[in-house]
Parts: sequence; C-alpha cells; structure tokens
Amino acid sequence: MKCKICKGKAVIHLRQHNLALCKEHFIERFERETLRTIRKFKMFDKEEPVVVAVSGGKDSLGVLYLLHKHGYNVRGLYLDLGIHGGFGYSELSKRRVEEFAERYGVEVRIFTIQHDLGYTIPEMAEKRYEPRVCRVCGTLKRYYLNKIAHEMGATTVVTGHNLDDEVATLFGNTLRWDLSYLRRQAPLLPSTHPKLLKRAKPFVFFTEKETAMYAILNGIPYVREECPFSVGAKSILYKEVLNRIEEVSPGTKLRFYREFLRFMKEIRVPEEEQVELKECQVCGMPTVLEVCAVCRMKGVTVPLNPSDQ
Amino acid sequence: MKCKICKGKAVIHLRQHNLALCKEHFIERFERETLRTIRKFKMFDKEEPVVVAVSGGKDSLGVLYLLHKHGYNVRGLYLDLGIHGGFGYSELSKRRVEEFAERYGVEVRIFTIQHDLGYTIPEMAEKRYEPRVCRVCGTLKRYYLNKIAHEMGATTVVTGHNLDDEVATLFGNTLRWDLSYLRRQAPLLPSTHPKLLKRAKPFVFFTEKETAMYAILNGIPYVREECPFSVGAKSILYKEVLNRIEEVSPGTKLRFYREFLRFMKEIRVPEEEQVELKECQVCGMPTVLEVCAVCRMKGVTVPLNPSDQ
Repeated sequence: MKCKICKGKAVIHLRQHNLALCKEHFIERFERETLRTIRKFKMFDKEEPVVVAVSGGKDSLGVLYLLHKHGYNVRGLYLDLGIHGGFGYSELSKRRVEEFAERYGVEVRIFTIQHDLGYTIPEMAEKRYEPRVCRVCGTLKRYYLNKIAHEMGATTVVTGHNLDDEVATLFGNTLRWDLSYLRRQAPLLPSTHPKLLKRAKPFVFFTEKETAMYAILNGIPYVREECPFSVGAKSILYKEVLNRIEEVSPGTKLRFYREFLRFMKEIRVPEEEQVELKECQVCGMPTVLEVCAVCRMKGVTVPLNPSDQ
Repeated sequence: MKCKICKGKAVIHLRQHNLALCKEHFIERFERETLRTIRKFKMFDKEEPVVVAVSGGKDSLGVLYLLHKHGYNVRGLYLDLGIHGGFGYSELSKRRVEEFAERYGVEVRIFTIQHDLGYTIPEMAEKRYEPRVCRVCGTLKRYYLNKIAHEMGATTVVTGHNLDDEVATLFGNTLRWDLSYLRRQAPLLPSTHPKLLKRAKPFVFFTEKETAMYAILNGIPYVREECPFSVGAKSILYKEVLNRIEEVSPGTKLRFYREFLRFMKEIRVPEEEQVELKECQVCGMPTVLEVCAVCRMKGVTVPLNPSDQ
C-alpha cells in the first residue's frame, strides 16, 4: 500500500476516505483537520487559556500533544478517580500522564477527587447505592473538570472524544430519541453561565483507529487498558454493532455523525425551557438547584436524582 | 410459564412487555391492539373498502385474516413479480395466497406484473442495468399496488409491515438522517392525490415473533422462505444488529419506533417543498413528472433516476 500523496510506504488505510497515507502525510493531515475543526466550530483561539482533560489514554494525550505542538495556550488536568480495581487503573493512568508532562514539558495539574469529596469514585457509588458506577463517575467528572479548569483560569474544557465515542453516544440517544440529549451533542458546547466553561471536542471526526495511530506514530506513551468498570457498558455494545456496520459500509460512522449535525440545524427544535443556572449555596458552582449534586453527594447518601447535573 | 391473565399454559413470552400469554389471551390481545392501532391512527373504518397487499408471508396474510374476521370491508391483492429464482419464490407464494383465499372465503385479486409491464421484475432490473433488483422491485410494487387497488375501488392499501421491518428501515434512514424519508415513516401515510391511496400498517407495533405466532396459532398457511434477492440486503444486517441490542435490552425496538413518532411530532420540520402531483400522460397515475417512472421503464431502458417515484 502506497501513500496517496508521496507514493512512500503507507502506514494506514482510511477506508472511510479510501485513503492510504505514510507516517508524515498521515500526521500532517490529522493535525490540519484538527485545526480546521477547532476553527470551523469556533472552539477557541491560540491565546485563550484552555485545559485538556487527560485520562492517560491515546485520545486525550493526543489532543494535549497536538495543541501544545501548535502553540496553543494549553495545560492538562488529570482527575485521580481512585479506581484501584484490577491492575490499578488510576495509578497506571496517572503515571502515564506524569511521564507525558515531564517528557513534553506541558503543565498538567493532578487533582485527586478523594481529597475534596472525601471518597474515591467506587466508594461514593457504593454509598449512594448506585449499581452503575459510571453514572456517579460522569457527574463527578463533569463537575470537577469544570470547577478545577475554572480555578485554573481556563475558558474551555477540551476532551479527547473521538468519532467512535461520539457515534456510540449518538446511537444510544437516538434509540431513545432523547431530544434534550441530542441537542447537546455537538463538537462545541457553549458556556451558559460565567462559571460554566465551554466544552470542545476537536477529535470528534476521527475514528479510534486514527487517534491511536496518531499517538503511536508520535511515540506518546498511553494507557491501553479500559476502565475496569466499563465492562458490559451499553456504549461498548453500541460500538460493536456500529463497527459491524462500518465493516460492511465504510464511512457509515462519519456520515451518521455529520448528517446528524446537519439534521439538527435543519429541523427547528422547540425552545428548550431555559432552566436558569444559579450558584450552589455551598460551593458556588453553577447548578439548577439550591445545592449542587456534588455538594449533596458529600452530605447525603440518598440515590442520585436523574435530574441532577 | 403461565398466562398472566388465566394462569393457563403460556405459548409466548413477550420480553418487551414482560408478559406471558396463553393461546387464547395472546390472540385476544393481538387483535385488540391491532384494532386500537387502526382507530388511533385513523387508518380506515369498517365500511371503507380497503385492500391488503399480500405476499404470501405471515404478516400480510395475518392482517388480511384479522380484518376479515373482524368484519372489515377487505380484499386481498397479490402481485406476481415473476421471481422464479431458487425454489420458485413467486409460484410458492401465489399458491399460499390462493389456498388462503379459498379456505377463508376472502376475495384476493392476483395481478401478474409481467402482463402489464412486459417483463418480470428480475428481467426489468437487468434491462435497467440495475444491480440491486430490490430498488426496481420497490418502485414497481408501490406503483401497481396503488394502481390496482385504486381500480378495485379501495381507499387504502394495507400492508403487513411489522416492528422489525419498520425499525430496520428507520435505522437505515437514521444512519443517513434522511429527513425526506424520516417524515414519511409513519403507521399511516395520508392520500395527497385523488388517485394516490392512503397506506396503512396496522401491525407496525408487533415484532416478527408476534406476527409469526399469530399466523401459527390461527393455522394460517404461509411462505416461510424469504425472497431470494433479499440475501445480503442492508435491512437484514440492520435487523441483526437490532436483534442483538434487543436481546440485551428488551423493548429497545418498540421504544425506538414509538419515541421516533413522538420526536417527529415534537420537532418542527421545515415545510416540505410541495411537489405537486400531476397525472402521468401515459397511464394517468400520479407522478411528479410528465411520464411516470413505470411508464418510462416500459419504454426506455436507462438506469432508474433516484428522484423517480
């Protein structure tokens, strides 16, 4: 297989674009497309202080690497969730992130949730009688990423979500035709409160195969293991079936997501009831209630309310 | 397993409703729900002359059986497509339909497409250089069902589409977010021209398992074989992956379809450009062009245009 541009040895074949590329031209294309996505969706500009939420995986470290390389005003933020299960997921991830920060000279803030919350994520899930750790984890991560990035003076929380992540979520939301989720599924979520940062996903048009290749070709050390709690998650089933369809019809995932964005622009969705965000009476962070979900978690141990942030 | 109603021996367990039923109560529920769907979507009333498009399969013969049993003004219409492939699909189907008509004393009109078109469906697909027979077949079936049912004096073409058919189509249309297809995917399509009949699908909330059970329990003889051209069709792949998800989350298919209908009501889709239907200069049937797709097929042998009816 030869690179379409230079006829050199190709390292990857992108079936969805019917495009084979060598190392150099793959990286070039990958970076150019990322910068284009950032501009096209008006995510952030070069001077703006942004924070990449890093998990230690290929996607988030890849984003941090790319933005740092291209001179963005970027720092990392690692949340230590206290997931010691299996092989010591959190420890392993943290080590990769520290290695990365050291090697590339990028500032990465390590924040240990337990120090603020009083519990690790699995402990908190247990206290809330919540059989699915992932739900508690999602709430806590969203809260702390926003809070700490805000304290760090950033305007934007950047995440490494790739196309496979995004279409699995989209697929799940489409199976339920959940308008309130669907309307929030975009490459950029704007800020709706001075203390609620923008959220941006610059890798959202790349498949997992592409983001992995980018990390590998750049020699970025990353955690390959998945979170031990993700076993049996619906998103994994959805990824499986979407992969099965992609195999038969290359390009399905990309079209599914792109056409979805076009569709949401084309239809007129009824105005969302504007739930005004207040500031939590305990921590001061934005919430629809008097006391935010996380502050209530700290104090009470009743099951999480579905309408919580 | 016991019937939830009478505690007798259950013949079916509907996982999506967590409901086990005996023969008697399954049939009772199945018929009650069908009649409710007909009323709810204002499909047709008892006196109205309607035509069921029968293929010889469990779904369409089941609908015809049920409507006849409940005193609807119903006749059948069988299109002989001339698909002689494999085991003689069309012959076998026709025989089942004739058996059915004889046994239950229902009038079923047999219409041989070749007699009007000059070709069988596979021959026509070949003449049009169309590698996918299904597309040509779809166009021809829609045309002749409407035309012959109109000649028979019916107001409505009723088809046996079940939930599995419907969600497979919905899934395909959602992967492309094709608004023009999505807006036409409803249990009832109204008439938009005096010669274009309503189209109604009263079985659309039943899974294949339910419609098969209804046919079996009533001793209706039906063709179990699938059309030989359906092998490798996308819809079969979609059914497979949806079955996989249904297995893990019973009720997914029903929710996917029901919530879709709610979603389409909730959103405001931009007014469709009203393409006015004219009458074909050759056959007089409704078309957006001067000469309809089928009349052009008869005369010309160029590939089918995607914008054709």
